[in-house]
Amino acid sequence: MLPRLLSSITAPTTDHTAAVQRHLDSLTKPPGSLGRLEELARRIAVLRGGTPRVEQPVIFTFAADHGVVAEGVSAYPQVVTAQMVENFLRGGAAVNVLARQAGARVVVADFGLASPIGGAPGLVSCPIAAGTANMAVGPAMRREQAVVAIEAGARLALEALDAGADLLGTGEMGIGNTTAASAMVAVLAGAPVEEVTGYGTGVDEGGRRRKVEAITRALRVNRPDPADALDVLAKVGGFEIAGLVGVILAGAAYRIPVVVDGFIAGAAALAAARLKDEARHALLASHRSVEPGHRHVLDALGLEPYLDLGMRLGEGTGAALCIGLAQAAVKLLREMATFKSAGVSDRPAGGDPA
Amino acid sequence: MLPRLLSSITAPTTDHTAAVQRHLDSLTKPPGSLGRLEELARRIAVLRGGTPRVEQPVIFTFAADHGVVAEGVSAYPQVVTAQMVENFLRGGAAVNVLARQAGARVVVADFGLASPIGGAPGLVSCPIAAGTANMAVGPAMRREQAVVAIEAGARLALEALDAGADLLGTGEMGIGNTTAASAMVAVLAGAPVEEVTGYGTGVDEGGRRRKVEAITRALRVNRPDPADALDVLAKVGGFEIAGLVGVILAGAAYRIPVVVDGFIAGAAALAAARLKDEARHALLASHRSVEPGHRHVLDALGLEPYLDLGMRLGEGTGAALCIGLAQAAVKLLREMATFKSAGVSDRPAGGDPA
Repeated sequence: MLPRLLSSITAPTTDHTAAVQRHLDSLTKPPGSLGRLEELARRIAVLRGGTPRVEQPVIFTFAADHGVVAEGVSAYPQVVTAQMVENFLRGGAAVNVLARQAGARVVVADFGLASPIGGAPGLVSCPIAAGTANMAVGPAMRREQAVVAIEAGARLALEALDAGADLLGTGEMGIGNTTAASAMVAVLAGAPVEEVTGYGTGVDEGGRRRKVEAITRALRVNRPDPADALDVLAKVGGFEIAGLVGVILAGAAYRIPVVVDGFIAGAAALAAARLKDEARHALLASHRSVEPGHRHVLDALGLEPYLDLGMRLGEGTGAALCIGLAQAAVKLLREMATFKSAGVSDRPAGGDPA
Repeated sequence: MLPRLLSSITAPTTDHTAAVQRHLDSLTKPPGSLGRLEELARRIAVLRGGTPRVEQPVIFTFAADHGVVAEGVSAYPQVVTAQMVENFLRGGAAVNVLARQAGARVVVADFGLASPIGGAPGLVSCPIAAGTANMAVGPAMRREQAVVAIEAGARLALEALDAGADLLGTGEMGIGNTTAASAMVAVLAGAPVEEVTGYGTGVDEGGRRRKVEAITRALRVNRPDPADALDVLAKVGGFEIAGLVGVILAGAAYRIPVVVDGFIAGAAALAAARLKDEARHALLASHRSVEPGHRHVLDALGLEPYLDLGMRLGEGTGAALCIGLAQAAVKLLREMATFKSAGVSDRPAGGDPA
């Protein structure tokens, strides 16, 4: 399935860009005066190839555990991953609140909890294993497991698209997963481990040092190949991150915008873009995370986030906020009057009057 | 009425801040991990003195004309002010689209159009005169007119509050009004005219030079007193700007958050804060405008905007976008589970575990 998915991802035709721009400039506002909201509308319209709607957004919040927590890289105990999944299912987490505000559905999936939640209603079950292995001593997962996780994520996205989803958001939960994401970004973006490793959910400087050391060991032990994103994902990634790679590839294949949450979802986006560069056209960066490695992700993907609110929670919270902006942006295309339809004087040709 | 309004504006008790912070820190997320969204929730909660709601936001889009257009300061003809008012009333402008997205009502008021719109349904009529006089040759308006406009704006806000409004947004339309706002900010913030004068709706460098010259003449001819905001508003302001000062003061008096749009609404906010410093507690800066003078406004008010999307349209478009964030922020306070209620392990006391 993965090779077929990758081969179906192509760049949108650029022909449509000029038409979208003409329409934007015909609307009753000075050209460009809505700034990046216009850019957001244009990107979605060019990707979709028409006048888009964002009426059925779906956020994928994938959860899994990480063996690297044995290295003392998180401020929270591992059980919090499963506890937060239960919180997601009851609708009490931040992503639930922000998704409700955006009118988005949240798909919560277990991609590999260390302590499985038996038969929780609403939980999608795609566990690859009971958490990854500790990457500081060996590969986090086998290559085949990475493929299975990607394909499971893609399948969930395709189901949502079949049900009418017109925008996909990415989110995650996994105690220890900033460490995995930092390792992936260090390799894929070729950045120093020090520069891509931050305080995660709130470790102190000692915790950050332990993260740097764990990542450094993981890279030395596993030698992930920077030119092979699947190798990187398998050796130092995570099951939930691989699942999000699948969501992104599915969105890109069907030319549905994918709103990337923060640093960890960003690592998934970077891996997806390395598997197929044309996937980048579907990506919208929601917000700039506090995590220092996020800058490297954004630079490598050539993306500029729409929000910069000092957030570092994950779950899909940044994606949820950005969905509100995406909805606003496409509604401008659809609902604003034109200078002609509204009988508003456009400025004299040639620009600036005396 | 104005003196009474000003005397009723006081600072919120700070006692509540610690309680709001404790509640925020009890929610299922690492402390502070929602960044400025938490700050936004906290500011609204402290202002309101309880667990706030944002369910009936109202945006005030006030329109008026400016005599200074005779100096060739705008890219658009003056008739566009009235044409855009008609567009607002038909729901076809950007602010209408973005307000619908945010679930906000838009109050469109004529504070002094040069070409009055007779009996347009939905238009609130509070014209002070058929546009201001040309400030480059004399005062834009008389001091009494500024007071009447402020009081009219305050009255509209009070009506909305009586009808249940729980958040006020400010917006405006007035060909030439970036020139008025720049003049006000130059005086009130003590900033060089060059630094606070930008390209407005899209003049070229020649147009910007004409704006700088018109403002320089206006300041020389009128000598507005920086210590007297009413004098500044009257001599180099605008009727719609004065109306917004009234909205802000009314919101502040009733401890209702006021979302300030961009540069022009920012000039109104600065004038309001100079009339009564405690009004600042009610102000939320929605977005960072492209207009260079906005930085001076924000610095003088001690505000940091929540959005930075390269916008420069006005109308209340930035306010409308920020209302969505405010709604999200207060819902977090109201709807998120706590560590205790959700049975999620908080991190061990003392912070960072090994």
